[in-house]
Amino acid sequence: MTKAKTLTRPLEPGATIGILGGGQLARMLALAAARLGFKTHIYSDQADACAFQVADARCHGAYNNRALIEEFAKGIEMATFEFENVPEIAPTLLGQHIAVAPPPGALAVAQDRSLERKFLAGLSVATAPFQLVGQERQIDDALRAIGGPAILKTSRLGYDGKGQSRVKTAAEARAAFQAFNGVPCILESVIDFAFEASVIAARGRDGAFAAYDPPENEHGDHILRRSSVPSRLTPAQTGEATAIARKIAEAFDYVGVLCVELFVTKAGQLLVNEIAPRVHNSGHWTMDACQVSQFEQHIRAIAGWPLGNPARHSDAVMDNIIGPEVNDWLALTAKPSGLHLYGKGEARPGRKMGHLTRLQPFGSVRRS
Amino acid sequence: MTKAKTLTRPLEPGATIGILGGGQLARMLALAAARLGFKTHIYSDQADACAFQVADARCHGAYNNRALIEEFAKGIEMATFEFENVPEIAPTLLGQHIAVAPPPGALAVAQDRSLERKFLAGLSVATAPFQLVGQERQIDDALRAIGGPAILKTSRLGYDGKGQSRVKTAAEARAAFQAFNGVPCILESVIDFAFEASVIAARGRDGAFAAYDPPENEHGDHILRRSSVPSRLTPAQTGEATAIARKIAEAFDYVGVLCVELFVTKAGQLLVNEIAPRVHNSGHWTMDACQVSQFEQHIRAIAGWPLGNPARHSDAVMDNIIGPEVNDWLALTAKPSGLHLYGKGEARPGRKMGHLTRLQPFGSVRRS
Repeated sequence: MTKAKTLTRPLEPGATIGILGGGQLARMLALAAARLGFKTHIYSDQADACAFQVADARCHGAYNNRALIEEFAKGIEMATFEFENVPEIAPTLLGQHIAVAPPPGALAVAQDRSLERKFLAGLSVATAPFQLVGQERQIDDALRAIGGPAILKTSRLGYDGKGQSRVKTAAEARAAFQAFNGVPCILESVIDFAFEASVIAARGRDGAFAAYDPPENEHGDHILRRSSVPSRLTPAQTGEATAIARKIAEAFDYVGVLCVELFVTKAGQLLVNEIAPRVHNSGHWTMDACQVSQFEQHIRAIAGWPLGNPARHSDAVMDNIIGPEVNDWLALTAKPSGLHLYGKGEARPGRKMGHLTRLQPFGSVRRS
Repeated sequence: MTKAKTLTRPLEPGATIGILGGGQLARMLALAAARLGFKTHIYSDQADACAFQVADARCHGAYNNRALIEEFAKGIEMATFEFENVPEIAPTLLGQHIAVAPPPGALAVAQDRSLERKFLAGLSVATAPFQLVGQERQIDDALRAIGGPAILKTSRLGYDGKGQSRVKTAAEARAAFQAFNGVPCILESVIDFAFEASVIAARGRDGAFAAYDPPENEHGDHILRRSSVPSRLTPAQTGEATAIARKIAEAFDYVGVLCVELFVTKAGQLLVNEIAPRVHNSGHWTMDACQVSQFEQHIRAIAGWPLGNPARHSDAVMDNIIGPEVNDWLALTAKPSGLHLYGKGEARPGRKMGHLTRLQPFGSVRRS
């Protein structure tokens, strides 16, 4: 992957930012960019992408359509993306014409769990014990090394529990590997964690770093259900988690917002579960509880603007609205919470349709 | 003006709200509507309307273009407007097809200072002493009745000090009347007020009423420069100001957000200066200091949704960014304030280009 162009000066208000991807993250990025006076141009392979509704310009096509990407590049001053699983060709082509942030190198690592684990090991950042599994015949040794139970995860294209399978025996692991069509995987120990947390942080073009207070996260069916601040992390753990995120961001020479998901073990150890080189669902509460949301922070960072203040003015609990839950929209409008709906059509099971953030006065919740 | 259609049930997320006007108020309404899952369709007579940049659909044409307005009505579920000086034909035509809010009757009154004063007198709401001036020969008597100095204001189409002239003598008043081409005016006493304030309030389709904490406002060259909460209003004055806004809203059978601008005299009396049947510049701080901004509140009200909580979580000072001040955008990005830029092209003198809101912890400022 070649190095993309970089901005030589801060992006002027009125400029157009291109966003690869047209889901809710792109939509909320576009809304934040508009608040700062930028126009956005959304590129999506979905004809009814919900981010199209709030963008100045739209491009509908495959992410590997070279001609369309070249055309897209002509109408924008710089590009970013809302998800890490965009085909490499898109940011590479864009980078030949304009600045692209976050750096495509971070994307490449986050796209591939095997690369990600090697990258984290290189930084001496702890993760759950794991083994790479490239071929079926490696499974027995891998499972023995880990000691079951374990989770088999495809190296690429996993999200919201897709491409993951919990296994106890070698036979189960082999079946899962076959169900994934024999693609490269990692086999990972199941961590009996106390709770999950994440760090949402930004790094500017000048190397400045700013992290939000890390939320505590609860999942159900592999999908994030709730993020809360404050979390149960102690001040020392919060410092450690933030330092991990900073180390990762600096190693990537990162520009933009990134998320580092963590397991917090019962012994108090922090284990990195995943890096997302983008704004993240566990940071949605920042829209209601901070003056500068993660979306604005990302736009500030990639535009070469000074990072905003990540301090929160309130305690917050964010709950996702998933699939058919959105059909109760009328009841949701009456809740004393900040309601965010994503403008998506069909409320398919598991689809993120919106979120609700309940605020309480700052410092009213004590958890750690 | 005929009665417009009304919504028979709350507007469903995914519906399209039409907005007459394409300036910064329409832009911020569109952003708030998007947050709630609505699409917006902007109608403006300006080809480069800044609200177009964030809308799902756009209509560019004159506000009295019947065919275009009929076309516009077909693509939207309901309509609202960002300014009161829209030609009557537009809401009237729209009202034949779809629900329009706020009620066109409120628009008609707010468009005309003479009607507005009669309306307020009918509600026993105090204003500055004034006289109607329809013809030049009435000026001497009017000035004598008021006792100079006074301000001559055109009844219609005034904003940001346009159509206003301060006069001391009958000769000055006659010259001003002629300069306004002899259109109907009001002659109003200059109030030696202690400060200015405003009430931003919403009334729902169910009659529910919710007011924000009234800001104190400072003007320069007839343009709002700063709004601050808390204001110097005493709790009793805040109650009185809010009751005035409620009385006005109920008299109009109002739906949506409205603003009532007030003079606070040195003796502590509240005098209504102007009614704006729309979201208002002096309520922009609600975007940063409240979970539900005035823009979201307006959308909630007109959509038939429950009103949101108008409580603020922070003290706030909002400063407008006017004309060439926006050329210092790079310095503005570094301020520890919420920055909002409107995506307008040319920074003409007096043009509202953006605003900045500085937050402080709730209760940290004591003014009254």
